[in-house]
Amino acid sequence: MADQKLVEKSDKASQLTLGFGLGQTEPLAGSSESVGKKKAATKSNSKPGSGKAPRTRATAESMAKQQREISVSEFFAKNSHLLGFDNKRKALLTTVKEAVDNSLDACEEAGILPEVEIWVKQTDTDRFSVRIRDNGPGIVKNQIPNVFGKLLYGSKFHRLKMSRGQQGIGISAAGMYGLITTGKPIQIISRTSSRAVAHLYKLAIDTKKNRPDIIKDEAIEVDFPHGTEVTIELVASYNKGRQSVEEYIELTAIANPHATLILHPPVGATLDLQRGTDELPDETKEIKPHPYGIELGTMIKMAKDTEHQKLGAFLTGEFSRVSPAVAKSVCAKAGVTTATWVSGMETPVIEKLYRVLQDTKLKAPSTNCLAPIGVEAILAGLLKGIKAEFYTASTRPPSVYRGNPFQIEVGLAYGGELGRDRHDENPDEEKGKREPAQARVIRFANRVPLLYQQSSCCTFKSVLETKWNNYTLSQSSGAMPRGPLVILVHMASVWVPFISEGKEAIADYDEIRKEVKLGISECARRLGTLLKRKKKKSDFAKRRDVFTRYIDEVVEATRSITTFNKEDFRQSLIALSQNYTAAADMEFDDHGKVIKKAKPGNDLGLANTVVVNRDEETDGPEALFEDDAPKKVANVSLKQSKKKKKRRK
Amino acid sequence: MADQKLVEKSDKASQLTLGFGLGQTEPLAGSSESVGKKKAATKSNSKPGSGKAPRTRATAESMAKQQREISVSEFFAKNSHLLGFDNKRKALLTTVKEAVDNSLDACEEAGILPEVEIWVKQTDTDRFSVRIRDNGPGIVKNQIPNVFGKLLYGSKFHRLKMSRGQQGIGISAAGMYGLITTGKPIQIISRTSSRAVAHLYKLAIDTKKNRPDIIKDEAIEVDFPHGTEVTIELVASYNKGRQSVEEYIELTAIANPHATLILHPPVGATLDLQRGTDELPDETKEIKPHPYGIELGTMIKMAKDTEHQKLGAFLTGEFSRVSPAVAKSVCAKAGVTTATWVSGMETPVIEKLYRVLQDTKLKAPSTNCLAPIGVEAILAGLLKGIKAEFYTASTRPPSVYRGNPFQIEVGLAYGGELGRDRHDENPDEEKGKREPAQARVIRFANRVPLLYQQSSCCTFKSVLETKWNNYTLSQSSGAMPRGPLVILVHMASVWVPFISEGKEAIADYDEIRKEVKLGISECARRLGTLLKRKKKKSDFAKRRDVFTRYIDEVVEATRSITTFNKEDFRQSLIALSQNYTAAADMEFDDHGKVIKKAKPGNDLGLANTVVVNRDEETDGPEALFEDDAPKKVANVSLKQSKKKKKRRK
Repeated sequence: MADQKLVEKSDKASQLTLGFGLGQTEPLAGSSESVGKKKAATKSNSKPGSGKAPRTRATAESMAKQQREISVSEFFAKNSHLLGFDNKRKALLTTVKEAVDNSLDACEEAGILPEVEIWVKQTDTDRFSVRIRDNGPGIVKNQIPNVFGKLLYGSKFHRLKMSRGQQGIGISAAGMYGLITTGKPIQIISRTSSRAVAHLYKLAIDTKKNRPDIIKDEAIEVDFPHGTEVTIELVASYNKGRQSVEEYIELTAIANPHATLILHPPVGATLDLQRGTDELPDETKEIKPHPYGIELGTMIKMAKDTEHQKLGAFLTGEFSRVSPAVAKSVCAKAGVTTATWVSGMETPVIEKLYRVLQDTKLKAPSTNCLAPIGVEAILAGLLKGIKAEFYTASTRPPSVYRGNPFQIEVGLAYGGELGRDRHDENPDEEKGKREPAQARVIRFANRVPLLYQQSSCCTFKSVLETKWNNYTLSQSSGAMPRGPLVILVHMASVWVPFISEGKEAIADYDEIRKEVKLGISECARRLGTLLKRKKKKSDFAKRRDVFTRYIDEVVEATRSITTFNKEDFRQSLIALSQNYTAAADMEFDDHGKVIKKAKPGNDLGLANTVVVNRDEETDGPEALFEDDAPKKVANVSLKQSKKKKKRRK
Repeated sequence: MADQKLVEKSDKASQLTLGFGLGQTEPLAGSSESVGKKKAATKSNSKPGSGKAPRTRATAESMAKQQREISVSEFFAKNSHLLGFDNKRKALLTTVKEAVDNSLDACEEAGILPEVEIWVKQTDTDRFSVRIRDNGPGIVKNQIPNVFGKLLYGSKFHRLKMSRGQQGIGISAAGMYGLITTGKPIQIISRTSSRAVAHLYKLAIDTKKNRPDIIKDEAIEVDFPHGTEVTIELVASYNKGRQSVEEYIELTAIANPHATLILHPPVGATLDLQRGTDELPDETKEIKPHPYGIELGTMIKMAKDTEHQKLGAFLTGEFSRVSPAVAKSVCAKAGVTTATWVSGMETPVIEKLYRVLQDTKLKAPSTNCLAPIGVEAILAGLLKGIKAEFYTASTRPPSVYRGNPFQIEVGLAYGGELGRDRHDENPDEEKGKREPAQARVIRFANRVPLLYQQSSCCTFKSVLETKWNNYTLSQSSGAMPRGPLVILVHMASVWVPFISEGKEAIADYDEIRKEVKLGISECARRLGTLLKRKKKKSDFAKRRDVFTRYIDEVVEATRSITTFNKEDFRQSLIALSQNYTAAADMEFDDHGKVIKKAKPGNDLGLANTVVVNRDEETDGPEALFEDDAPKKVANVSLKQSKKKKKRRK
């Protein structure tokens, strides 16, 4: 319907191209005419007699009349792809994602272990009704219309603290998309406590004015003590596999082991992912902006808006890590004092102060605004979700970009069943090719899985830039490494710089890329060690094979010389072979030296790494080698991992 | 400054990772403690005695207090990377780009041949002042504050017509970025005619309220009769090469041969690109939305907002291509009449009408809203800017995505000097590799060069998806083709779906990708023909070489048999060889058949293709072979191309 060719004879532009392979037979009189016209073009650009209407000339006045304000909802309605509504499949995912993100955020802030239930029902061809209910704290009645019926409205934008939502766009945008495509309003039921009565709203967003139209507003009885339920009907399509709602829910469970997630798909069995731990992530604290990260203009603005009157109070009160002593010394260097009135400061003075602050040594921002997933949870998640042989994870120390604290976590899973079915899974792979499939990257930002725009993502670029050949994986220049490998990357930050409002990929800041690459290298180094050892082991095994293969011939050959017990001789040769190639059963360190074999067992006394021997069908992870990292490190208890596995089944 | 590591002992998150390769020596008491804590976690999540402060529990009420409206300027100030201000280098380019785009749009609307002059001056370390002046129609005084000091304000958003600007964000965002980074307001001088007095404004954008703060507002004398001059001071960096302001200006000249562009860089010579043609692009007309493209919700909204009272008038008046006859039949099928009152229609009735409309055969939208560059201008631009051997171009017929008409144009340049210096130019290429460099893609949207986010661009993905091996170019799976090749892609549309507000790449709509691929195939087929012929020619030349190499030996060998004139014999052998391998001098068609050699000359009587023999140092393009397309096609006059080249020197 939106794809038909337009070949109108009256249109000059298309005439120029009509001849290209379309087999038109009419003579194109217009063509030569148009070339002739071009030659006859005059500076004045008026072409009397050329058959064209004279050009309408806009003036400053006529153009001024067209100038209008654009409402932010109009803007995003027209640019719905910016919000993740490019196509029907993605529309469904984005809708579920925005609602679930909000539910998880609300539960965590209220200290409630989240339980989110999702119903997806097909109502017509290409039409679905999506209902998401959580056990969160609910939403105060008079806030509901703005939260769900207005873009750029929310509680998370103006604070520096890690959360899934940050823009105040997501859920209203999903409601708007539903309204635009089906004409149906968004429905919200919310109850703030078992003592309060629940309330139902139906809202349509007025895109021209970016404000909610209240369609229905009434008290209602519900069977849940507290929580919020959102229902949106939208044009969408439901698929399984990569980039599906299912994948999103499964990955969300990996990054949020404290959450119970239940999905009722339109067809097929319910996906019931019970929580794997009863501990909420660490509580995060809001922080003040750090002087290193802000821009000069922001500081000028802050000085204008502050409630503090004296410069000293302003500096210590509005910024992170500016102690009274620091404030005093900074003021002195800038030629002012802590008693200077903020309101009387001119721009050049603030600029001086700004420059002094940038050159002053300050403590890095506090990082209790962040709650990383943690290596244990990453390993547990990978163990549960991916049947590999080797698992490792690493949480980087916090770092800063543009003044925003952030923290990178990386996990790797390698081998096992990953190599076996990847060829079917990977749609990019052409059949008949013998190259192993490309590695898969699983991306998270503030515990939310990112499923689209992978190639634009800073984390993906970091994977490409890593020299995987150094870790014995095959990789052609500028491409993904090849092999049975899954790479998990998580960025936790008070403000994740997404490349679009749809929050599908992380923007490519140097500081972030550097940290991701360091995290990947840490994990890849451990993997490289395993692979090198495996290679050495297989080299020795080959040597033994060659020797063993000739034992029978040697036995035959020597028989003709003298008589002796053939069987005895063979056995002694086999013993000899096993003795000389015993190395094939040994473990070797990085430099090929024999190391004492680690005892297989349930306690993984080693750094953030789990190895499962899937070939021998053992039923649990096994410690294979010691990590090459320094000794004083946090350990992963296998028991815990196993417990989690069981719990989350 | 923004990259320091944060290793705080008080922070649990960082403790977990302290050991990783950083060589810390202190014992990490906290580590095991934290693991212990995890094990002790209880369902209630309150951990008395664990040493942590009790968790603060947000309630619906406390959360409601934090809910706030977010101004669109605040949003984009925090997300400056969405607008193309991710880094200092890009900030400079984006600022120039937004101003130049506006200038070109204004000139064209007013029917003025554009002349845009740009000054970039360094004012401090990392600080530049950018001034852009055009000869456009100027801006009415009272519109200036909103146009430059408010995001989402403009004349181009609400109409369906091709233009460079479309969002009403660009130039205000550049001014906002300047203000945020340097504290300096944006300065605008505008004059609407030689009879009017010029006016100067200095504006700071109030980000909290998204409205202009007027700093200065005065009449001023200027030496230009009409036009606008914008000055922005910003934190930036100035570089040459790829993705630089220079590249942007040069590419803009290729796509806008009617514009004169003059750049005064902070150092080095002025870049003076005079226009190559005095003809403005075809005037574009505003169109109404086409019923095929709109969403149901939009139609409901239109029915609510329309000034038409009767359904017939509404349908014919507010949509493209709905004639009174079509309106009548659509109404009948939907169970209403053209005399039905629009205001009384319920949603289900509109939905019925909408569905009937989608199933009704309608003429495709008019395409006089588009002004493609045209094959002549693309070829002229490529000939001027790129020293290749082979050039071809193609303008596709218009098509439609989401109801928006669009048109794709593709140009190819191959061989010549492209192969010679690409290894230095391409930063991705590692030294010492013998593979030819990857092809380069030059992207345009509504005549504006796109320099960033290439890998996310629909045009780039189309290049990757093209099977270049079919056209005898080397390409590994999922990668760019390799060879001395430049691929130009232009999308002209009433609404280009950019992947972000920074307008750096085109979103990946199926309809668009399909058209781009068809355009590329058209051009690549012609290139493939050339390359196959070249190969055949070189095969014959090799045969001759072998034969010639042995002539002397044959002469020597036969001498011993009998006496004869050695020189005569050699000459006759050479003649023989030339006769038998004359094919090496011939031209061959696709199937290896000899074709009559086209006469080299100045008139290129062939389809949209130019071949320049750079090896023989001829000074002009030469017609080498006939195109395989049907005969009735628009021709490219070489004379014109040469004229353009000379003019634009």
